[in-house]
Amino acid sequence: MSIRNPWQRRGSKLIYSNPWITVREDDVITPGGTPGIYGVIETRIATGVVALTDDNHIYLVGQYRYPVDEYSWEIPEGGSEVDEDPMETAKRELREETGLEAERWEQLGGEIHLSNCFSAERGFIYVARGLRQGKAEPDHTEELQVKKVPFAECLAMVDRGEIKDSLTVIGVLRMARVLGLDPR
Amino acid sequence: MSIRNPWQRRGSKLIYSNPWITVREDDVITPGGTPGIYGVIETRIATGVVALTDDNHIYLVGQYRYPVDEYSWEIPEGGSEVDEDPMETAKRELREETGLEAERWEQLGGEIHLSNCFSAERGFIYVARGLRQGKAEPDHTEELQVKKVPFAECLAMVDRGEIKDSLTVIGVLRMARVLGLDPR
Repeated sequence: MSIRNPWQRRGSKLIYSNPWITVREDDVITPGGTPGIYGVIETRIATGVVALTDDNHIYLVGQYRYPVDEYSWEIPEGGSEVDEDPMETAKRELREETGLEAERWEQLGGEIHLSNCFSAERGFIYVARGLRQGKAEPDHTEELQVKKVPFAECLAMVDRGEIKDSLTVIGVLRMARVLGLDPR
Repeated sequence: MSIRNPWQRRGSKLIYSNPWITVREDDVITPGGTPGIYGVIETRIATGVVALTDDNHIYLVGQYRYPVDEYSWEIPEGGSEVDEDPMETAKRELREETGLEAERWEQLGGEIHLSNCFSAERGFIYVARGLRQGKAEPDHTEELQVKKVPFAECLAMVDRGEIKDSLTVIGVLRMARVLGLDPR
C-alpha cells in the first residue's frame, strides 16, 4: 500500500484570512504528473461534546447556522484557540453554551476529518458525565437555545435526518454504540 | 422555538473561486446586533457510496488527501456537477473509482452538513447493492487503491479511529444500524 504523498507542492499563496478560516492556493503537480492548483481551507480544530446525564439524557444546542441557512440542533461545539488542548476547548464551550460543568471527560472515538477534499479541518468529540448546572455565558454573536432530551429521542432525530451536523451525527451514533443501544 | 434567521446580510463579496470551491465574505449584523463579517465556503454537493456485496463486504477506496496531508481509506466519494442529481453523481463516482455498477440504489439517511460553521457543503450517502464489476476509470488527478473488506472489519476500522473521513464514518455507522449489527 502506497502511503507516500503523491502530490508535489511547488508554491503556496495566501488568498484570504479572517479570525476563523484561512484560504490558501497551492501550486501543485497532481498524482497524474500534470500541473494544477489546490485551494485549501484551514480552520481551528472543531470540538463537540456529548453531555450525558446519569439517566441518559443529552443536551442539545439550537442555533441558526448562517452558511447553510438553516436552524440546527447540535451537540455543544466550538473551535479551539491557538495552542488550546481540544478537550479544554470542549470544556469551555460546554460551560459557555449550556452552563454545565462535568466531573468526567473522555474522548469519544478518533479524530474526524470533516471535509478532507477541500479543508484541513479536524474534529474531536468528547463525552462529559457527572454534570452539574452553572450559568451559561454564550458568545455575543450567538443566539442559542438549549434543551435536554432522552438520548433515544436524540438518536431517533439522527435516524430521521432531523440532525444534519456531521460532528453531532457522528457523536450520537458513536455514543449509541458505546451505550449498546439496539440498532433499529 | 425561534427558527427565523437572526443574521442580517448587508452585502457580500466574492473572495476566491476555483472549479471546486468558492469563498465569499458577507458583511453582516450578528444575532447580538453588532456589525461583523462572515466568510463562507461554497462547494459542490458531496456524495458517498456504501457499496455492499450480497455477503456483506464493502468497497473502500484509498487515496492521499492533500488538505489533511494523510492517506485515507474511504467509501467512494465525489462532488456533484452543477444541476447533477446527487444519486447520479454517486453512480458515476462508484463506476469511475471502482468500476462497479449496481442494480439497486437507495439513500442512506438524511442530508449531512459537513462543516456548517464555515461551509455550505451538503452531503448525501447512498447504498448500492446488486454489484457487478466493470472497468474503473479514475480521474487523472487521482491515485487510487480499491479494496473489498468484510463490513464488520470496516466497522472496526471506524471504531478504532483508523477511518477519519466524516462521510465514511457516518455511512458506515448508519449502515451498521440498518444491518442490525450488535453495538460493541
